[in-house]
Amino acid sequence: MERYDIAIIGTGPAGLSAAVTAAIRKKKILLVGSRDLSSKVQKAQEIQNYLGFPDISGAELGKAFEEHIDRMQVPIAEERVNLIYPMGDYFSLQVGQEICEAETVILATGVNFGKPLPGEEEFLGRGVSYCATCDAPLYRGATVAVIGYQKSEEAEADFLADIAEKVYYIPMYKEPVEVSEKITVVKEVPKEITGGMKADVLVTNENSYPVDCVFILRESVSPKNLVPGLQMDGNHVAVNLQMETNVPGCFACGDIAGRPYQYIKSAGQGNIAALSAVSYLDQKRRSQKSAKA
Amino acid sequence: MERYDIAIIGTGPAGLSAAVTAAIRKKKILLVGSRDLSSKVQKAQEIQNYLGFPDISGAELGKAFEEHIDRMQVPIAEERVNLIYPMGDYFSLQVGQEICEAETVILATGVNFGKPLPGEEEFLGRGVSYCATCDAPLYRGATVAVIGYQKSEEAEADFLADIAEKVYYIPMYKEPVEVSEKITVVKEVPKEITGGMKADVLVTNENSYPVDCVFILRESVSPKNLVPGLQMDGNHVAVNLQMETNVPGCFACGDIAGRPYQYIKSAGQGNIAALSAVSYLDQKRRSQKSAKA
Repeated sequence: MERYDIAIIGTGPAGLSAAVTAAIRKKKILLVGSRDLSSKVQKAQEIQNYLGFPDISGAELGKAFEEHIDRMQVPIAEERVNLIYPMGDYFSLQVGQEICEAETVILATGVNFGKPLPGEEEFLGRGVSYCATCDAPLYRGATVAVIGYQKSEEAEADFLADIAEKVYYIPMYKEPVEVSEKITVVKEVPKEITGGMKADVLVTNENSYPVDCVFILRESVSPKNLVPGLQMDGNHVAVNLQMETNVPGCFACGDIAGRPYQYIKSAGQGNIAALSAVSYLDQKRRSQKSAKA
Repeated sequence: MERYDIAIIGTGPAGLSAAVTAAIRKKKILLVGSRDLSSKVQKAQEIQNYLGFPDISGAELGKAFEEHIDRMQVPIAEERVNLIYPMGDYFSLQVGQEICEAETVILATGVNFGKPLPGEEEFLGRGVSYCATCDAPLYRGATVAVIGYQKSEEAEADFLADIAEKVYYIPMYKEPVEVSEKITVVKEVPKEITGGMKADVLVTNENSYPVDCVFILRESVSPKNLVPGLQMDGNHVAVNLQMETNVPGCFACGDIAGRPYQYIKSAGQGNIAALSAVSYLDQKRRSQKSAKA
């Protein structure tokens, strides 16, 4: 199994800055996120307060970031991270359909995970899933609902349609929906997930759909559900000035670590998080060496 | 008297980033520091981890910063700040020979203030001074010592030589010393300042000099002596994630707010500090308005 020094989740300014700093320190890095880098950066018309770039468009700044990360030869794994499990002295990560390991983790996912639906967290793992490719095999011949927060989730719905008996697809975006004919597209607003021992009904603003599973596919998973035991501060991961979370070896930076939501602040915190991860690794190795001696 | 919304002390990446963000928010800014911007930035051969600028020299990055601050039309006051006194709901600042006022203060001085000499803090204000232009008149006809940490302090020593009877000048740098002939240049290492009710002897590694005052002229004054009552964490100003210090309205960012000492981290914290100052001002004005209503 592939084991990395540092897994960095997110390719906005925080994640990229962390990756650049970690690469300079010659660490083995897993960088997971969109290859388009941060869509929030790309969409910004004009950014005036990223020191060194007066009056730059989001697209231009994104290009400068991309050049930097290319120069450092850090590849981007374009996958969703569904679970990061602290195993004591390392982490086990579910990245797309693969499992891999990392000694440290830097969360830089941004805050695009939205508010959970009533029932979502209660039934997570019991009829609510964040990963179609992981859990589809459990629902062969079953009825499932897929709530897709961006157009790219349509491929996940199509994949499920080949396995499940019936798929409801609820698009949460404005672009036209193009999915397999076998899928029933439901243009309603999800309101709640209900059930008993497990989830069995998706309630919308108009109807109730009896289902075996609700797949909720957002850009990123809420950090609380991503890393079991992670301490939050409201909607943000609780960190100190060194970007350490309450989970040893797990760091957070950028929007997910709190306001203000600013590019230069995120880049600065990414740098701190990477250096904290490097010094965590150094200390760990020193103590392993002295234990052997 | 000139009253500013935000006084920013320091023109390294933290101070400049704070100034850019405060300027965008249309605040009345006093930015104090070297017009050469950070000499530490200028001297860096190559900076690899400032996201967006792969492989840039310190001089080039400094130029990019300068262009940004020029574009924002923020002038730099090239003075030393000797004292920042919290007056309750504003601050009184001794900037060079002038006194001015600011509703908020952002400390971004870096960590170039050095270790205090034994006796320095004990006798500060009683035979130890950080400001020749401020305190020279008190030492007409007296004997003083000037410890200069950079060549630019020679002008201060010359100024003192016109007023005091005798001036010892102790250069703490390597460049050749060019001062008035009336000054005795002492190439020794200062070790201690001793005295009774007030300082009266400068002890070096070789001699003891009876003096009425020791002027210690460093690039910046230690924050503890700069802002009375400021809480420190070792050699750094204690801050929270919003860059707030224990003194309401006073913020700190960059190297002075703790490690790591990195450009992008400093720029990120400067942005946070400026936004925190802006929101402090907003809240203050809202509460003043509601008090009037």
